[in-house]
Amino acid sequence: EHAELLSADVLVISDTSLFAKGLPAICYGLRGILYFQIDVEVARHDLHSGSYGGSVGNPIDVLAHIIAGLKDAQGRVLIPGFYDEVLPLTRRERDEFGRLPYTDAGYLEETGAPALFGEPGYTTFERVWARPTVEPNGVWGGFTGEGTKTVLPARASAKISCRLVPDQDPARVSHHFRDHVRRLCPPWARISITDFHHGRPALTPIDHPAVQATARALEAGFGVRPVFVRAGGSIPAATTMQEALGAPAVLMGIGLPDDHAHAPNERLDVETFHAGVRSAIHLWAELASISL
Amino acid sequence: EHAELLSADVLVISDTSLFAKGLPAICYGLRGILYFQIDVEVARHDLHSGSYGGSVGNPIDVLAHIIAGLKDAQGRVLIPGFYDEVLPLTRRERDEFGRLPYTDAGYLEETGAPALFGEPGYTTFERVWARPTVEPNGVWGGFTGEGTKTVLPARASAKISCRLVPDQDPARVSHHFRDHVRRLCPPWARISITDFHHGRPALTPIDHPAVQATARALEAGFGVRPVFVRAGGSIPAATTMQEALGAPAVLMGIGLPDDHAHAPNERLDVETFHAGVRSAIHLWAELASISL
Repeated sequence: EHAELLSADVLVISDTSLFAKGLPAICYGLRGILYFQIDVEVARHDLHSGSYGGSVGNPIDVLAHIIAGLKDAQGRVLIPGFYDEVLPLTRRERDEFGRLPYTDAGYLEETGAPALFGEPGYTTFERVWARPTVEPNGVWGGFTGEGTKTVLPARASAKISCRLVPDQDPARVSHHFRDHVRRLCPPWARISITDFHHGRPALTPIDHPAVQATARALEAGFGVRPVFVRAGGSIPAATTMQEALGAPAVLMGIGLPDDHAHAPNERLDVETFHAGVRSAIHLWAELASISL
Repeated sequence: EHAELLSADVLVISDTSLFAKGLPAICYGLRGILYFQIDVEVARHDLHSGSYGGSVGNPIDVLAHIIAGLKDAQGRVLIPGFYDEVLPLTRRERDEFGRLPYTDAGYLEETGAPALFGEPGYTTFERVWARPTVEPNGVWGGFTGEGTKTVLPARASAKISCRLVPDQDPARVSHHFRDHVRRLCPPWARISITDFHHGRPALTPIDHPAVQATARALEAGFGVRPVFVRAGGSIPAATTMQEALGAPAVLMGIGLPDDHAHAPNERLDVETFHAGVRSAIHLWAELASISL
């Protein structure tokens, strides 16, 4: 309602962090999100798996077929139309990501995963920042306690979210997702798909004048050229403001990845903070010097 | 330890029921059981699905691929070797089952299932009594509360049981199951398979002298020829005694299917009880008249 008072040429958001201590980063892209719950029902109430097993379908089987039908064993999404609007990475972006400090061994150590996973043809950063996903976030159904219970459950459910990348449209991807899931549901089961929320992906190109002005400000503040990164997560407030105001967003964060943001013992590195203050001072001068 | 005191020619067990009021039944076969828990782990702790989605595998995907790989969309088990030892139904058995009162509509009403399910080429009773199954009994992992949480879970688990039929050997089927499940697990996940318990399937052929003696006793007690059925469930005590004593088991139960066994308001139909008493009296005479 106060669009005029809020009118702006550029949005500067500090909700990201340096790539590492001494290495400032500009986050020029965010993934969007879609979040669903799928509920499958095959019977009025739980049944005895001896008395009915083999003649009444199992809702866990239905969910398994649906989830297994969402992507292949290497993580490539199988939903028709899912990749139609995906903006490919540019040569420059891949070069920028390729220069970032990274080792497979470090990544495995960080996550505790026994081996790397992901779409063939992409690096870890490319997969997480610039490729869309379909990810089961939770699943439940039937007997989940200690020991055994021979139940043929009446119902089973899953939470499944998609991370979207530019230029995927949440409404269109939601439509593709629902169509595909419904096709995977057999006639002997009832399915319901609930749409929780969605957020658009966002991208302000690296060569945008505001991004380049921010890069100069960070270099002046830290004495080091910043790197260009994206984030795999979503900041719905950023995309909402961007759309409402029609202004590009630049994410210049000055925390460190190990600041324990939102967690116990949250902290702020004083040296990095001072470099951030210098960068912010330079930023206003830089932004004033360009025409937007 | 008291094998001699317990030595017997035949075991008579009353843990089943009539097929319906006025229609006595002899249960001459039981399915066996195998019960597993599968735990899949892909990371040390839960991860943010934005920051890691696309580059770290998802344990729910692993479980989904495993469960979807256990049987096809019509319920036929895909585990190599699973059907190797399955004793086919005889013509006589299929005829006996085919004469039992049954309608698809009644079965759908009883279970609340929207449509029939099961292995092609078999009737509902054949599927439940004489065909083996692989059934997920429970599944859990990740976020299962209200609303949304964008978690990439570190772990997910499932309880899965098999109902076995004569002449499947639990140890051999367990081996096939484990082999198949391990083959379905990708290198980026750790899997553990726990074996809870198993029970052998059991069968005393319809033309066994003890079964025929029981049939005559039931006909004398109820004034109606009994039907021959099997049960889809398992009575591990029956097979244990059968194996320990080397004697055939005959299951002659005189409850009714709607007696609410083990449930509130458990009851006993007096008329059926009296017919059962008469049958039991006849049974001892009939058993004494045959040589076993």
